Amino acid sequence: MTIADGIRESIEKSSWIRKMFEEGARLKAEFGEENVFDFSLGNPDLDPPVEFINKMRSLTSADIKNVHGYMENAGLPEARKAIAEKVARDHGADMEPGNIIMTCGAAGGLNVVLKAILNPGDEVIVIKPYFVEYGFYISNHNGTMVLVETNEDFSLNIDAISRAITPKTKAVLINSPNNPTGKIYSAAEIDALSSLLREKSDDGGSIYLISDEPYREIVFDNVEVPSILNYYNESVIVTSYSKSLSIPGERIGYIAVNPSCSGIDTLMAGMIVCNRILGYVNAPAFMQRVVSGMNNVTVDVDAYKRRRDLFVQGLEDAGYDFPRPEGAFYIFCKSPVEDDVEFVRHLQNYNILVVPGVGFGGPGYFRIAYCVSEDIISRSLPKFREALETFR
Amino acid sequence: MTIADGIRESIEKSSWIRKMFEEGARLKAEFGEENVFDFSLGNPDLDPPVEFINKMRSLTSADIKNVHGYMENAGLPEARKAIAEKVARDHGADMEPGNIIMTCGAAGGLNVVLKAILNPGDEVIVIKPYFVEYGFYISNHNGTMVLVETNEDFSLNIDAISRAITPKTKAVLINSPNNPTGKIYSAAEIDALSSLLREKSDDGGSIYLISDEPYREIVFDNVEVPSILNYYNESVIVTSYSKSLSIPGERIGYIAVNPSCSGIDTLMAGMIVCNRILGYVNAPAFMQRVVSGMNNVTVDVDAYKRRRDLFVQGLEDAGYDFPRPEGAFYIFCKSPVEDDVEFVRHLQNYNILVVPGVGFGGPGYFRIAYCVSEDIISRSLPKFREALETFR
Repeated sequence: MTIADGIRESIEKSSWIRKMFEEGARLKAEFGEENVFDFSLGNPDLDPPVEFINKMRSLTSADIKNVHGYMENAGLPEARKAIAEKVARDHGADMEPGNIIMTCGAAGGLNVVLKAILNPGDEVIVIKPYFVEYGFYISNHNGTMVLVETNEDFSLNIDAISRAITPKTKAVLINSPNNPTGKIYSAAEIDALSSLLREKSDDGGSIYLISDEPYREIVFDNVEVPSILNYYNESVIVTSYSKSLSIPGERIGYIAVNPSCSGIDTLMAGMIVCNRILGYVNAPAFMQRVVSGMNNVTVDVDAYKRRRDLFVQGLEDAGYDFPRPEGAFYIFCKSPVEDDVEFVRHLQNYNILVVPGVGFGGPGYFRIAYCVSEDIISRSLPKFREALETFR
Repeated sequence: MTIADGIRESIEKSSWIRKMFEEGARLKAEFGEENVFDFSLGNPDLDPPVEFINKMRSLTSADIKNVHGYMENAGLPEARKAIAEKVARDHGADMEPGNIIMTCGAAGGLNVVLKAILNPGDEVIVIKPYFVEYGFYISNHNGTMVLVETNEDFSLNIDAISRAITPKTKAVLINSPNNPTGKIYSAAEIDALSSLLREKSDDGGSIYLISDEPYREIVFDNVEVPSILNYYNESVIVTSYSKSLSIPGERIGYIAVNPSCSGIDTLMAGMIVCNRILGYVNAPAFMQRVVSGMNNVTVDVDAYKRRRDLFVQGLEDAGYDFPRPEGAFYIFCKSPVEDDVEFVRHLQNYNILVVPGVGFGGPGYFRIAYCVSEDIISRSLPKFREALETFR
């Protein structure tokens, strides 16, 4: 029996999130589910909105011809139309149905974009800390990931990005609101990044700016997420409904390309081919119909805000240090010692499960996912306090 | 703007099926939909079974916690269990839930298997004529497709396969019932192929036998489709519900690995990683639940049989030459001239759309997809006759 060498390595360096998941299962078996404080997984626990459930019900009752059949690889015309309208409204930008591709979630969308643009050895700049799957997505298509540090407050370090750009740079991939930091890049940051990319793009072809933004609708305190579409022509949005509708298992999302992107017809045609040949063929048909009706629907974001406020207050009171998250459902907290894995292991003694920052290319920190009930958060806070006290 | 060189090529050699699709749209606009005989696309026109619709309805009414949430990348435990039972029964073979991975259709499943096993430059033997997407799936993962001819009747040419095997051969990929020929490989053929692969496999690792079989349940005259699981240990089934339930847009299928496959734990772990990192993450959650209840359900196969019989009789009467299809919903018909594209163009004068065999690596033939109504077939037959008469 022989499997590919690269995949053998991937199995061996199985992700930190997965390790915490297994540790959690062990602790839950030993202490009971309600006595384990599991903040390791970003699996939204809120129910999907009632409008989503109702739309599913009405579609299963309706008699629509070919409702589960093949379609154009880019997606159902009505889904692309509805989403173009949503993107135009939410981003305050031009968008046409022809610039939308329905995808198997954001993960599927990112693979489609990367396959369409990367020649072997082309570089993609990724900002640390980062969602570890990006590394796999880039190497799937024979690209090279180039990691770049942020400033201390997790804002974009434009100078560092500038230094990382080479003639092989094909794209910069950002994630805002950010997993794991909860940071939202400001309009000034996006503007500066866009200016840099315009300056660095040469006649041979521009550098794409790709924004992975499944958390765009999970933001607090009326903070706005600036849209790259309004700052840079060669810009591509990739997103999903996994978080905004709490349906991550359904694998439904989309790609939206800036209509001002140069050579857009070739880019769209290339991505549509990639959606087909990567084996997605098309995004799941039924879910395309469901989300077409969800332009004004999201989960209860206030529930996430209440949890964030509760957690932030409790951790600050206990003496933890972290930037206040502006969106998503993560807190990226400083470890009291340099070795975040050591502190994460210490927290396990209190039945607290978090993911070490090293798993995101952000050592010295740990990630708390607060897509869990307020009750669990409340009961965990004294444990967090105790853990910090006993560690010192 | 720059896209990958390989993708630019892929756009340019856009598939024959797609070309026919566009030609069909033109003809339908000119002559009216009912006056065009479109046999180009393998998009099942039969409605999904009523059991499928009812299961969808009951699931949207039920209140199941986390019904749309994340799960293990291999799929929902209940889906893997149900499908292991189905495979064990249908193949008369051992199968365990742990050997099943739920996938985004057979296309997703094939990409997962190929990514898991192929090192760069590894070879995959594919039997001509073949589903053209195989070439893309293999090159997605830096493999090399090696095409091998069949015998005149489209049965496996074991000698030709033997000659094509090199030290780099990692897998043989077969498709039975076959698209485009409708051929089912006999038990004797599978047995001979298995013996060959056993003989050629060396200590460094066996050659996998991969069977893509989405048409397994679309078979006529009680012909049996022999299962590779009963002939060869290093065997992997990849399939989908696209044809058996008429739901190709939903992207739901699975991989089933022979429990006797050597190093199966590593192979399964590798494929599960690939399902995740290729961006599928998991097969669509809701459809996994739906198909879990479909072990005894298929579309009305008799409807396809009636169409086949009608078409076969009519074409024979008109003087066409082709092997009688045993399964799937295709007839692979000999072109009266060597240049199949020339005859396909001639058929277009009669508003008949078929796909030239050259699009499947089978020049000198053309493919008829008969997943259309008996009425269309009946009305097309005089046109087929006339086309052949005027061509001579």
